[in-house]
Amino acid sequence: MNVMNRPGESANRSLEDMMLAAVEGDRLALARMLTMVERGGDSSAEVARVSYRSKQRGQTVGITGAPGAGKSTLVEKLISVAREGGKSQVAVIAVDPTSPFSGGAILGDRIRMQSHAGDKGVFIRSMASRGHLGGLSIAVPEAMRLLEAAGMDPVIVETVGVGQVEIEVASATDTTVVVLNPGWGDAIQANKAGILEIADILVVNKADRPGAKDAVRDLQQMLDMAFSLGIHPRAMTKSTGASQEMWRPPVLETVASTGEGIPELWSAVENHRVYLEESGEGTLRRRKRAERSIALVLEAEMAKQLERIRSGHMYVSLVDATESGHSDPYEAAEKLMREADSGR
Amino acid sequence: MNVMNRPGESANRSLEDMMLAAVEGDRLALARMLTMVERGGDSSAEVARVSYRSKQRGQTVGITGAPGAGKSTLVEKLISVAREGGKSQVAVIAVDPTSPFSGGAILGDRIRMQSHAGDKGVFIRSMASRGHLGGLSIAVPEAMRLLEAAGMDPVIVETVGVGQVEIEVASATDTTVVVLNPGWGDAIQANKAGILEIADILVVNKADRPGAKDAVRDLQQMLDMAFSLGIHPRAMTKSTGASQEMWRPPVLETVASTGEGIPELWSAVENHRVYLEESGEGTLRRRKRAERSIALVLEAEMAKQLERIRSGHMYVSLVDATESGHSDPYEAAEKLMREADSGR
Repeated sequence: MNVMNRPGESANRSLEDMMLAAVEGDRLALARMLTMVERGGDSSAEVARVSYRSKQRGQTVGITGAPGAGKSTLVEKLISVAREGGKSQVAVIAVDPTSPFSGGAILGDRIRMQSHAGDKGVFIRSMASRGHLGGLSIAVPEAMRLLEAAGMDPVIVETVGVGQVEIEVASATDTTVVVLNPGWGDAIQANKAGILEIADILVVNKADRPGAKDAVRDLQQMLDMAFSLGIHPRAMTKSTGASQEMWRPPVLETVASTGEGIPELWSAVENHRVYLEESGEGTLRRRKRAERSIALVLEAEMAKQLERIRSGHMYVSLVDATESGHSDPYEAAEKLMREADSGR
Repeated sequence: MNVMNRPGESANRSLEDMMLAAVEGDRLALARMLTMVERGGDSSAEVARVSYRSKQRGQTVGITGAPGAGKSTLVEKLISVAREGGKSQVAVIAVDPTSPFSGGAILGDRIRMQSHAGDKGVFIRSMASRGHLGGLSIAVPEAMRLLEAAGMDPVIVETVGVGQVEIEVASATDTTVVVLNPGWGDAIQANKAGILEIADILVVNKADRPGAKDAVRDLQQMLDMAFSLGIHPRAMTKSTGASQEMWRPPVLETVASTGEGIPELWSAVENHRVYLEESGEGTLRRRKRAERSIALVLEAEMAKQLERIRSGHMYVSLVDATESGHSDPYEAAEKLMREADSGR
């Protein structure tokens, strides 16, 4: 069914059609909408107008950790367990902020995921940061919402590294899984990078290697300390008045290559979903995410406005005047803003 | 002379009086105006309206380098040499972005500078980042301009560390001096931190310690490489069409504690002033600085606007609507901006 460019229809109308098609399983329609989200600007705004109005929700699951921790294999096995457990539509967004296009390491990972290539119930998409104003921080949440609207559940977001963007993206989900490996210092490094704070579930992958028990013990100790001091973000749930017990991130051992521990990980993900619903924390998180999405759009608008101001006709002469003692930065800024205002 | 709050005069009028008083040597008036600059907002805007309109200019000299490199002692000795060389009004701004008030390490440094305490020709002021919107990046250039307007020459800006703010502040001067110490890796560290790029003059202080010659050689080699590859920012001066020879940062050895090498450092500072004037580079830099000052005021305005938008009456309900599927981030942002616009 070709739903694009049908004569006599507005762009929005045809996006609603595309959305309906996507819900009915049209993967091409879904892929096109994701491309629009990636493109950013008006294009992603149009998609957002449709996808954010859907009542359809799925559990979003962020999976983050250092490169080489085995996240892709883990995700691959997690998909299998979720599918066997009855999940009919599973989506994965693989995020690589460093790559200008979807390729490189990501491509290698995607090829490994081909074990799901023949499965109509699995949708996998790589996202890189090409040109979206506000970058992946805007694009990924919008893509998540679109996939939820299309009926995907869970929507898994896998990030490549542990940079600032990755942490932001992975933690803007319902459930955040942090993947570590055995080995001295890994837990401490993770703590430094601030990724323990965002974890709802901690996984020591490659747990058949030496040092796995030590890593689990280190992580448990760090959690003990954070909780007893009340500095763990989750430890603050109590003060919000939720009647529910606090969620303490479980520390799980997996061997993704053999599938060991993956069913337990999937159970933990499902338990966390129940916790989110029953404690009200899920709504709080979604509200925070909505707030963040609006803030990012506003910031992008401000950046555009700044650009417009600085490209005004008076700009060069006002810089000169400030340099030569005929104006000052405040007066110059004021005049530039007035010029931009009157030009709108 | 009490020039403030004289009845029948506008605030601006009395600031002009204060400026006149400061030029005539009234240190209390100058100190008051600096406090206004530090306070930020309207207060600093008022000072800027007066100080930026002065035609009086002095050479601004930034001195940066790792903590413990001996910058304070070096500045102390440099003041003496400048005073002996006939400079009648020397100012020092000591910048500490980490401290919420002027104290701590800075205070210790100031005490050491007491050798100039009885000298009316030396004005020393510490600046920390208390509350100035846009922070020290706005406040320090404004303080520099004020001190220039008051007849200070040179205006030395000494920073405590080599963080992003310090580098920005120290490099927003006519002449930037980077102070290093002998010792393996120091030059390489400096290169990594990007402070070699901003240096007009390189100083290996504590040159009586082992490794001084190696440090000088390392720095010279790095400069050779940067210049031959054309990647040193100064190496680009030629392409701007200036007829003048390029400025190659000299690498000097000093022992600040004994005063060794300080006269040579002062000569280099004076040579650089001549270079700036004759090559036209000085005007270019001042123009760039004016541009940056305007941009910072604009950015601060945008931040205020964002704050205003987010404190609008519709904010909470629009976040809720976005969360619950009745709006989307783009529509919500649009409505919030419209609300803020109509409220102006």
